[in-house]
Amino acid sequence: MRALVYHGPGNKSWDQVPDPTILHSTDAVVRVDTTTLCGTDLHILKGDVPAVTDGRILGHEAVGTVTEVGPAVTSIRVGDRVLVSCVSACGRCRYCREGQYGQCLGGGGWILGHTIDGTQAELVRVPFADTSTYLLPAGLDDESALMLSDILPTAYEVGVVNGGIRPGDTVAVVGAGPIGLAAVLAARLFSPAHIVAIDLVDARLDAAKQFGADVTINPSREDPAEQLATLTGGLGVDVAIEAVGTPGTFETCTRLVRPGGRVANVGVHGTPATLHLEDLWSRNVTITTGLVDTWSTPTLLKLVAAGQLDAKRFVTHRFALADIVSAYDTFSRAADTAALKVVLTGTPA
Amino acid sequence: MRALVYHGPGNKSWDQVPDPTILHSTDAVVRVDTTTLCGTDLHILKGDVPAVTDGRILGHEAVGTVTEVGPAVTSIRVGDRVLVSCVSACGRCRYCREGQYGQCLGGGGWILGHTIDGTQAELVRVPFADTSTYLLPAGLDDESALMLSDILPTAYEVGVVNGGIRPGDTVAVVGAGPIGLAAVLAARLFSPAHIVAIDLVDARLDAAKQFGADVTINPSREDPAEQLATLTGGLGVDVAIEAVGTPGTFETCTRLVRPGGRVANVGVHGTPATLHLEDLWSRNVTITTGLVDTWSTPTLLKLVAAGQLDAKRFVTHRFALADIVSAYDTFSRAADTAALKVVLTGTPA
Amino acid sequence: MRALVYHGPGNKSWDQVPDPTILHSTDAVVRVDTTTLCGTDLHILKGDVPAVTDGRILGHEAVGTVTEVGPAVTSIRVGDRVLVSCVSACGRCRYCREGQYGQCLGGGGWILGHTIDGTQAELVRVPFADTSTYLLPAGLDDESALMLSDILPTAYEVGVVNGGIRPGDTVAVVGAGPIGLAAVLAARLFSPAHIVAIDLVDARLDAAKQFGADVTINPSREDPAEQLATLTGGLGVDVAIEAVGTPGTFETCTRLVRPGGRVANVGVHGTPATLHLEDLWSRNVTITTGLVDTWSTPTLLKLVAAGQLDAKRFVTHRFALADIVSAYDTFSRAADTAALKVVLTGTPA
Amino acid sequence: MRALVYHGPGNKSWDQVPDPTILHSTDAVVRVDTTTLCGTDLHILKGDVPAVTDGRILGHEAVGTVTEVGPAVTSIRVGDRVLVSCVSACGRCRYCREGQYGQCLGGGGWILGHTIDGTQAELVRVPFADTSTYLLPAGLDDESALMLSDILPTAYEVGVVNGGIRPGDTVAVVGAGPIGLAAVLAARLFSPAHIVAIDLVDARLDAAKQFGADVTINPSREDPAEQLATLTGGLGVDVAIEAVGTPGTFETCTRLVRPGGRVANVGVHGTPATLHLEDLWSRNVTITTGLVDTWSTPTLLKLVAAGQLDAKRFVTHRFALADIVSAYDTFSRAADTAALKVVLTGTPA
Repeated sequence: MRALVYHGPGNKSWDQVPDPTILHSTDAVVRVDTTTLCGTDLHILKGDVPAVTDGRILGHEAVGTVTEVGPAVTSIRVGDRVLVSCVSACGRCRYCREGQYGQCLGGGGWILGHTIDGTQAELVRVPFADTSTYLLPAGLDDESALMLSDILPTAYEVGVVNGGIRPGDTVAVVGAGPIGLAAVLAARLFSPAHIVAIDLVDARLDAAKQFGADVTINPSREDPAEQLATLTGGLGVDVAIEAVGTPGTFETCTRLVRPGGRVANVGVHGTPATLHLEDLWSRNVTITTGLVDTWSTPTLLKLVAAGQLDAKRFVTHRFALADIVSAYDTFSRAADTAALKVVLTGTPA
Repeated sequence: MRALVYHGPGNKSWDQVPDPTILHSTDAVVRVDTTTLCGTDLHILKGDVPAVTDGRILGHEAVGTVTEVGPAVTSIRVGDRVLVSCVSACGRCRYCREGQYGQCLGGGGWILGHTIDGTQAELVRVPFADTSTYLLPAGLDDESALMLSDILPTAYEVGVVNGGIRPGDTVAVVGAGPIGLAAVLAARLFSPAHIVAIDLVDARLDAAKQFGADVTINPSREDPAEQLATLTGGLGVDVAIEAVGTPGTFETCTRLVRPGGRVANVGVHGTPATLHLEDLWSRNVTITTGLVDTWSTPTLLKLVAAGQLDAKRFVTHRFALADIVSAYDTFSRAADTAALKVVLTGTPA
Repeated sequence: MRALVYHGPGNKSWDQVPDPTILHSTDAVVRVDTTTLCGTDLHILKGDVPAVTDGRILGHEAVGTVTEVGPAVTSIRVGDRVLVSCVSACGRCRYCREGQYGQCLGGGGWILGHTIDGTQAELVRVPFADTSTYLLPAGLDDESALMLSDILPTAYEVGVVNGGIRPGDTVAVVGAGPIGLAAVLAARLFSPAHIVAIDLVDARLDAAKQFGADVTINPSREDPAEQLATLTGGLGVDVAIEAVGTPGTFETCTRLVRPGGRVANVGVHGTPATLHLEDLWSRNVTITTGLVDTWSTPTLLKLVAAGQLDAKRFVTHRFALADIVSAYDTFSRAADTAALKVVLTGTPA
Repeated sequence: MRALVYHGPGNKSWDQVPDPTILHSTDAVVRVDTTTLCGTDLHILKGDVPAVTDGRILGHEAVGTVTEVGPAVTSIRVGDRVLVSCVSACGRCRYCREGQYGQCLGGGGWILGHTIDGTQAELVRVPFADTSTYLLPAGLDDESALMLSDILPTAYEVGVVNGGIRPGDTVAVVGAGPIGLAAVLAARLFSPAHIVAIDLVDARLDAAKQFGADVTINPSREDPAEQLATLTGGLGVDVAIEAVGTPGTFETCTRLVRPGGRVANVGVHGTPATLHLEDLWSRNVTITTGLVDTWSTPTLLKLVAAGQLDAKRFVTHRFALADIVSAYDTFSRAADTAALKVVLTGTPA
């Protein structure tokens, strides 16, 4: 088969490679009908993720069709259309039993396109298939489902649920890239009174308005703390969601939140931040971090299938799977191309 | 009356001052039968709390007898024996309505011995008396009740409840001074499997064992991370409670906690800490801070009255109220005197 | 002033009565700008509520203007426009401290138009005014605010929050009268996948669709259990809300709910129901009951002010306050008049 | 091998039967080192559980040693000492993913000694072995572990956790048989102020005192409602746990609970109860039911291993496994023999 293979920092190619096979009785092999690119893939290509080594097939998101299952797989069958989750779950360890699949101790977690070959390929082996794939209801289109591999459960679990958003809250989302926009969209599910998007790029703030933010702030022109004080009677926001991954944006979140409020960190950080405990110690603040666990995938599938969540709106560009190198180019130049999610479609079998 | 009056950094005296009177219809005046000293009082005396100005009567903990009530007070009467909470609550603002009295917007919060005169006196005016004092059940001794003014609700709310301790958990308490010991005692209420006390002073670790810790670690001799890895199958503790108030001990807590665990900060901090988001972002960690709200006072009163919580064991030294200057001396030399809580008793009326 | 006075079962009149005055320091007197009628008022008029005696002014919902405050009232002033809650809260007892104002032990709870004179009058005395009225933001119209006196907090707290509705759930609302429609509207705040309205009257089911139900079932034509089995893969609904108040509809709810689901009773019951524990004991079902506590009033005010909740849509009929007897006639013949909420407007001062 | 085989109502015998074998790749076969009898087994023998048919080996509790595992089993190995849970979990269905194993849709739930052969045998086949057995820590004795097959998780999950017991609560446990005593013991883990045991048999009340109840009431001599009113300031208990399974005891629980309180039903019911909604509708009461899910088994194992929970105290009688018919006789005459848990020990291999 063909696959997008990582060849060390800065290098990747669409290579001919051997087809994957069943290695364990709980594996499935899935033909990739649709896959997409993630900001994490760009980090890998920069060499920022040392666990990814030369020869690895990238990608951790897919919708596909089951072509083979191991003898212990009981939930899916050959021919089933499934969502492949970015997180694999052994289903047996203490974390999997508590729905924290991202912390799996039994060989799962984020492994696809990381420590084992991934989904940017014509076929992918999915370990622990019973607990790492989701049967798709008839009538649910591939592109909508694909958004549930990673971006929407991440925003929902790590941003919105960790943030504890409640009806009537005022929520600030710092960063209006794809994951910030997903947080805006997912935040609406709990009916906050206001969603405030904060970003330095006006085009992103415009997108945030379309995704459901009712207030936008560009810190290059306005002081977020001042604007939010006006909106919240001087108290600060109930929930601040960090969706960038820099010390500065994290510290902004801790400064914008009201006493008793919550900061939910979604961004991927490479360096420490300063935690102003000299101010925060007495303010009853809760700060959360998290890798997506994908416990919410069934919930989100129900919402998308019922038409309550417009997952597809993230898709800005579409390519044939064979053109994935061009797709990477478009996605990596998001500032110019306004790419949010770039979808790759395989050739029908 | 006589009272302990602050006269600027390093200066205090047991002065003759005017008796307090009812200023607002919701005030009460309480004769102080028993009061105590808090580490915060020592901070004030060093000049670390600029809101406290020359002439202020110190103290925010007391058990006493009501001598006068304003016309709007309905819950307590002259002659009632009451607990005076360290936090006053207007009972009307959004925070008070949610039980977060420490964040009161209506004139309450920590005001006694801070922005208004306090309890280290023969009489004290208590604002918002209906929601800031607690009627004591017959048979509950003054000293036990006094421990519910501040130290026990602080440890219970900010350490144990914020920490979300559940049966079977392994809990680390970093710092075994009075507040850390209170956290050990209060943690037992939720039946963790193990409570690990960590401190540099062996005498404090011995005290922690007596308060309920089953494991103690002195970092000057043993590496806490290593010891806890052994105890927790390499994962780290479920809950870490910071009870010192330094960047180093806070960072230790974030290093000791397992993926999915919680860090509850109780310590009072004067400087920022480093938050290692480059490690923590993916570990599903929750960090909480908080000033005590005293919503738990009725709960703790029930536990003490039922004999389920031995509050009195904190009392190591006793003085007559008039000897409060000597009491301060004993309390400020805790390393030598092994003082935990020093109780001052007034002359019966 | 003039007021609607109850004169025993079946009798009421628009009488001249003395103006209310401040009786306690925590009272306010409010000029009624807008009030409404509740199904409970009809029960009272039938003689079903023995605590209401001859001479009582009815009504427990109002928006008005403060004309006088007692000396201990600090949150509102003469001239303020306020919402009068159907539940009064002493703000001091154990229930009020936990936000369960409906169970107030200090003289509050549902007292207006019940054990003291109510709001269907030109003026009303409101006890515990600081904790029983809510200042209205500028720009919020009276009719929208009025829906927050009773019907919306009841549906939100007792139906939706007690029901624990989560995104993606399937929710059945049994009964599509005013309170059932309010439950449909409020349920949307937590983004269920499906809201199923069940009622014997097609006109009510049509209304339910307009309020946000996406499925309707008329049990005179279809078996709800069968329909819901199809919708839920044979399991039953996640949450069933009882909004009628009869044994039969309650038992329907317990039959429709899936294992692990919740039944939230909102209906007012006059007789016992049968609880089929021989089936339910092993099904992990949670059943809740409740009088409204109105802890959610600030939340709902924020949602209405932000345009996230269309409270006004309940208003089907409008009368001058002096025509309240005609309004009662229209409201009591709801089957013919399709009345949901009938609004009475006083003469501007 | 030999096994206790059900032969229709009233008939059972210790028969020679074929050894169990691996049927599915996720099965294990376990040699039974220790097993016990449950009240449910007596119900089966009366013919009350029609799903149990002639020829079925009874028993759903065991501690044993793994003798064979299917090819997909990864968590346990031949020779491991394991706890066999009364509930089997497929680990894949929506209920298993949420920890509600008792409601498993994938072939699990309570099946051992019910729909498939059980543990009162020399060997037992355990389906879904990875998620239905628990590796025992060295040093944990068989008898203590055996109490975690059913009785302790049932009391903990269905009684104590569903009841939402919090520190300082007053808890009533209605029924002081084995499951009621387990509820008393498990309730202590959340530090209530008072645990009140209610039973008609004084010997059981004496046992309840030994298990941790501080108040006992025999309704043949005292009115529980009156006694509890005294203890709770007239309000009623915070939590009532039903541990009998009759309409009368359930109705007692709903009568004893305070406004805002919780009733947790643990008893197995064969007939409906009356739910007095005419009183309860306005009292903010929560009622829960449940089959044990055994999500708490790891928690309880940690508590027992740490010496925080004395599981073994339930064991009143011990027999060799081959003498199981005598053991049934002793257990079925509990009123005379004071039997709580009767332990059967197999012959070491």
